[in-house]
Amino acid sequence: MKTNQNYKKLAESYLFSTIAKKVNEYAKNNPDKKIIRLGIGDVTKPLCKSVVEAMQKAVAEMGTQEGFRGYGPEQGYDFLKEKIQKYYKKRNVNLKLDEIFISDGAKSDLGNILDIFSKENIVLIPDPVYPVYVDTNTMQDRKIIFLEANQQNCFLPMPKDEIKADIVYLCSPNNPTGAVYNKIQLEKWVEWAKKNNAIILFDAAYECFISDDSLPKSIFEIKGAENCAIEFCSLSKTAGFTGTRCGYTIVKENLIFDEMSLNKMWLRRQTTKFNGVPYIVQRGAEAVFSEQGQKEIYENINYYKENAKIIAETLKKHNIWFTGGVHSPYIWLKCPNNMTSWEFFDFLLEKAAIVGTPGAGFGKNGEGFFRLTSFNTNENTKEAMERLNKIL
Amino acid sequence: MKTNQNYKKLAESYLFSTIAKKVNEYAKNNPDKKIIRLGIGDVTKPLCKSVVEAMQKAVAEMGTQEGFRGYGPEQGYDFLKEKIQKYYKKRNVNLKLDEIFISDGAKSDLGNILDIFSKENIVLIPDPVYPVYVDTNTMQDRKIIFLEANQQNCFLPMPKDEIKADIVYLCSPNNPTGAVYNKIQLEKWVEWAKKNNAIILFDAAYECFISDDSLPKSIFEIKGAENCAIEFCSLSKTAGFTGTRCGYTIVKENLIFDEMSLNKMWLRRQTTKFNGVPYIVQRGAEAVFSEQGQKEIYENINYYKENAKIIAETLKKHNIWFTGGVHSPYIWLKCPNNMTSWEFFDFLLEKAAIVGTPGAGFGKNGEGFFRLTSFNTNENTKEAMERLNKIL
Repeated sequence: MKTNQNYKKLAESYLFSTIAKKVNEYAKNNPDKKIIRLGIGDVTKPLCKSVVEAMQKAVAEMGTQEGFRGYGPEQGYDFLKEKIQKYYKKRNVNLKLDEIFISDGAKSDLGNILDIFSKENIVLIPDPVYPVYVDTNTMQDRKIIFLEANQQNCFLPMPKDEIKADIVYLCSPNNPTGAVYNKIQLEKWVEWAKKNNAIILFDAAYECFISDDSLPKSIFEIKGAENCAIEFCSLSKTAGFTGTRCGYTIVKENLIFDEMSLNKMWLRRQTTKFNGVPYIVQRGAEAVFSEQGQKEIYENINYYKENAKIIAETLKKHNIWFTGGVHSPYIWLKCPNNMTSWEFFDFLLEKAAIVGTPGAGFGKNGEGFFRLTSFNTNENTKEAMERLNKIL
Repeated sequence: MKTNQNYKKLAESYLFSTIAKKVNEYAKNNPDKKIIRLGIGDVTKPLCKSVVEAMQKAVAEMGTQEGFRGYGPEQGYDFLKEKIQKYYKKRNVNLKLDEIFISDGAKSDLGNILDIFSKENIVLIPDPVYPVYVDTNTMQDRKIIFLEANQQNCFLPMPKDEIKADIVYLCSPNNPTGAVYNKIQLEKWVEWAKKNNAIILFDAAYECFISDDSLPKSIFEIKGAENCAIEFCSLSKTAGFTGTRCGYTIVKENLIFDEMSLNKMWLRRQTTKFNGVPYIVQRGAEAVFSEQGQKEIYENINYYKENAKIIAETLKKHNIWFTGGVHSPYIWLKCPNNMTSWEFFDFLLEKAAIVGTPGAGFGKNGEGFFRLTSFNTNENTKEAMERLNKIL
């Protein structure tokens, strides 16, 4: 048996293990210091009440003869798809139920979607970036070209005529930079995709952090996107589902390449290699979209956003350049005094006992930048900023 | 963008839609007849009490600040892996925790495992077969050769020197035939795999139905299998998890091909393209392995097995040849009077209002055979057999 040799080309990431090592060493040498972690990429607030109640009810049902559910539809139950359909309708995006595919999260689908594309395609990936886009294509030996995101374009790179690619990843609000594309910018991307017969893989996992109605939460708010884009979304950050696992992917029925319906191809992929999301979890997800559920999840989202605001205001005061922090849980800042990412990491840890994430870990264009996140408590975030005020 | 053209080669299966159409028509024309479905491939008993209680507790935890869990390890929590480790230990199979990968089911893993193999491999698949083995390889354009399972070899095909392949699928107890390999037979397969530098993908999804201790429940009960096999298992049929979704895959640390550790490759695949099984579901799965949980799930398994026995005894009485029905929820019978699969389907439906599954739907060697399952109630199964007694 011959193995997939492309796995040899995967880069090992030492980012989080190096951070852990440095933090452990610091803690050992400074047992009296309270370390504040602003590097967390995971939610910290518990599941909201509506979700808990819905899942309790679903678990109880599964224990009764009348309520028990075996295999469900691989693409998800209609009760959940109907809620998502309504959620999009609020932004004037019309979806058919068959265009909505419930999944166990955006990460799975972003990797698995590549199954339906030829190996021959050229892939365009922004740098800095969520590492999964690069790794999943490397596993399948696709040619990758990078799209330069930097301070000049505010980490929102735009298409150029000379860029030729078949697949492009756009993530807005962005991980790790927190930057958000506006409508005009996304229109240009759709135009470029159509001209190049390319497909946009739109990662909308952070859409719920957008609070300006003029900013698109979905690529399908852009005219023509239904013929050139697939959208991936998740309840991970929206409703604290990182450990509960539910997301959804939108593939419109009129998304056709090579005379093949990508909607039908994805349905075939999912029915063959996936058995659907647990019934219990789908009932929890359904509750997220109820009136009460929306109220509850926005209490958490707004709590995180308040933290982002506290960080952003501190940076402004010190004239530190940054993106994000408004429509995103992430703040992406230029390291002061031309420090490298790791120099600033050490500086923050040594001088203020604050842990963040060096931008260099997200690609070459991340060098000299740094990511702070809003997933700690209000109290800790405030205390961290007071410490920052003292050392900047 | 170019699509994956291999999808054009996928055969559409009309098996279950044709069955549904025929049954609907019969029901319309015979509104007074009670149809008994013995074609069901899904469990029908509710989740057992221990599982429900464990999941209720986990859901409640997730709603509290102290108990909330975000991202978990992609390969599963140790609390569950330790239980599986002990479960294997009972059969003298030693597993390290890192050799156990928790997943959302055997179907996902059986498809996704192909990611770590080269496209160049030749795949050996028994016929008749669970269609997923064929489809997932067709999607990746691997050459497939078939292994003839038939009445002569009791649907337990054995390796031959002239068979050259790199990957072989073995499913025991088998879906759809219910046939079970014994130890000597599996030893021959391990020997063949080693001689041919091939890998065995061992689908053990029905292992819990084995009640004869001399029959292997795991390929790792065979000496040397750890160097040439991966095992896939599921709680779907074991504990009624078809709608709750949890399984596990065993990749031993010393499974090396091309100087690459398949354990490390699978870990890389799962950490890159998967985010783990919901915490709540893993707590439910943990309860399956408790003393009380085992007692409860075996009440259900034995209930199904009692149905299988009722069917098997009826067939014996009429001298109808069959496999399965003892260590399996499936009974695979030779259609009487040389009827084809579909002729027997029509005969059963018209004369006895019983629905089963034509063997021809599982591959060319399934022609002339028929699958009955034990997932209906005791009462209905008995009634169906009384009807069968009258028409045979």
